[in-house]
Amino acid sequence: MSEMTRVALDAMGGDYAPKEIVKGAVDAVNARKDIQVILTGREDLIRQELKAYSYPEDQIEIVHASEVIETAEPPVTAIRRKKDSSLVRAMNLVKNGEADAFVSAGSSGAILVGGQVLIGRIKGVERAPLAPLIPTAKGVSLLIDCGANVDARSSHLVQFAKIGSLYMEHVMGVKNPKVGIVNIGAEEEKGNALVKETFPLLKSCEDIHFVGSVEAREIPAGKVDVVVCEAFVGNVILKLYEGVGATLIKEVKRGMMTSLRSKIGALLVKPALKETLKAFDSSEYGGAPMLGLNGLVVKAHGSSTAKEIKTSILQCVQFKQQDIGEKIRKGI
Amino acid sequence: MSEMTRVALDAMGGDYAPKEIVKGAVDAVNARKDIQVILTGREDLIRQELKAYSYPEDQIEIVHASEVIETAEPPVTAIRRKKDSSLVRAMNLVKNGEADAFVSAGSSGAILVGGQVLIGRIKGVERAPLAPLIPTAKGVSLLIDCGANVDARSSHLVQFAKIGSLYMEHVMGVKNPKVGIVNIGAEEEKGNALVKETFPLLKSCEDIHFVGSVEAREIPAGKVDVVVCEAFVGNVILKLYEGVGATLIKEVKRGMMTSLRSKIGALLVKPALKETLKAFDSSEYGGAPMLGLNGLVVKAHGSSTAKEIKTSILQCVQFKQQDIGEKIRKGI
Repeated sequence: MSEMTRVALDAMGGDYAPKEIVKGAVDAVNARKDIQVILTGREDLIRQELKAYSYPEDQIEIVHASEVIETAEPPVTAIRRKKDSSLVRAMNLVKNGEADAFVSAGSSGAILVGGQVLIGRIKGVERAPLAPLIPTAKGVSLLIDCGANVDARSSHLVQFAKIGSLYMEHVMGVKNPKVGIVNIGAEEEKGNALVKETFPLLKSCEDIHFVGSVEAREIPAGKVDVVVCEAFVGNVILKLYEGVGATLIKEVKRGMMTSLRSKIGALLVKPALKETLKAFDSSEYGGAPMLGLNGLVVKAHGSSTAKEIKTSILQCVQFKQQDIGEKIRKGI
Repeated sequence: MSEMTRVALDAMGGDYAPKEIVKGAVDAVNARKDIQVILTGREDLIRQELKAYSYPEDQIEIVHASEVIETAEPPVTAIRRKKDSSLVRAMNLVKNGEADAFVSAGSSGAILVGGQVLIGRIKGVERAPLAPLIPTAKGVSLLIDCGANVDARSSHLVQFAKIGSLYMEHVMGVKNPKVGIVNIGAEEEKGNALVKETFPLLKSCEDIHFVGSVEAREIPAGKVDVVVCEAFVGNVILKLYEGVGATLIKEVKRGMMTSLRSKIGALLVKPALKETLKAFDSSEYGGAPMLGLNGLVVKAHGSSTAKEIKTSILQCVQFKQQDIGEKIRKGI
């Protein structure tokens, strides 16, 4: 049997915590024997939830934590003061080597700050990027960086390109992943100061398969596997992706309800439409990994249900088995 | 009768030039009596096209130009060398006061450079932004700036906010338009260096209705009327808007063709779907105005057909009649 992957799961973080989080843990251990989930949070509440399920009991453990970090709290203060919170307890398990990965649907700010402050960066990594998978016409691409640290330098972007390539190759199984830098035109001389400075560095980087600029309109078509950009732009891309998709789908659905004819048609296309939209729903792909840390941190959506939590836990296995941390250490 | 609006139209610019451009001019003058279109380009070709239509002949004029600027040419050199091109001739008509506005579906780079170099900025305007209308669930918003000049300063963004407000209020008829700055979170302390510096300036600006940060996901929902950002981010938003929309629609259509059931449904929803998608097609709203110049410049899509050209010409009327140039001069 392959090695165990130990995942510290913040049972109290997220809109549907602890119910959906605990269910996600149960579903994950029922799916694979090589996962151990350590739930952190109010032990009484967690035990209450666990009662409803049957699962291999040696694969789920509870570490009690009395506090919860709310999404509205300033992250730095929250991390510092709430030592007995489910989030800090879980992160410390990774820090102390008692867990390989951390998963939470809680406060994004606290996860990003905690990742840097509590777990810490791999030596040599200048910045730990948040890198969600985004759906495309060809499958998924990795959007790196969407984190909280804006105003990046070119050396950061080069590291993001390398780290992103390693992740796509070894976790997602994309051979020789294509890397592109987000730009406002295809030509090398186009771009803002940061992109112009970064472009030649990426071009001369032998460890990655750099294909040049990628215009925003080419991202959904799946032109590249690793989409490199600084966090402000990455955040805009990620949020607009969700926004345009959601608005368009709502309008399409509303449009179909305007006549009897189209209402009947809507009933007939519904199953096919649902299938298509599922492929474009980012929660299908689990949470966003924060890379370059001494352990994997996965930030799941605040609205995560059991399914996304389960997917997020399962993606930790590949990360551990492929020893991505070590590959990043050597690769950057 | 109200005053004439004189539009210099680059008959040779665009994928479907001169055919669709000339047709657009004819449709525009057939729609309104207070428009005069001056077509620039190869006179023989233009006359050939015009032969097919009936229209009030005193409303269309031709100014011969023997050259054409191709989209692949470096803009600055092209503008300088091709003095007898349809684009330079048309811009010079605006510069010399013989036309109020310029419309072209030709080289974006040449239009942006020509606007600055040939027509020139209104005194006091630091940068002339390109500001397309983008479709939202509530109608349209103005995305300002999407031009070629990246790495903006905060004073530029404040001017964009003022100019955008004037355009939305007086050309689009939105009373007291809501202005937002593109940001990665709702709080004032969020953002990159540029946004943090600009935020308080916008907040203390009395001429506009500033509502704070707008996250990218809120743009398609129509949260604000004027979306302020620097050109790199604006370009990403504009292109991603088109990209996500196009990919999603393609996938939805493909999804509907997967079974007999959904194929029948697709036939029934088609008319309603078409109507909805039309509302989300940016070419419905004409070209993108480049604002802050001594005359209006409208950059239509390269793929413009007669319809977009006509819409672009008609939007010049409102601009002229409302004397937007003078309002910008006083407002900034």
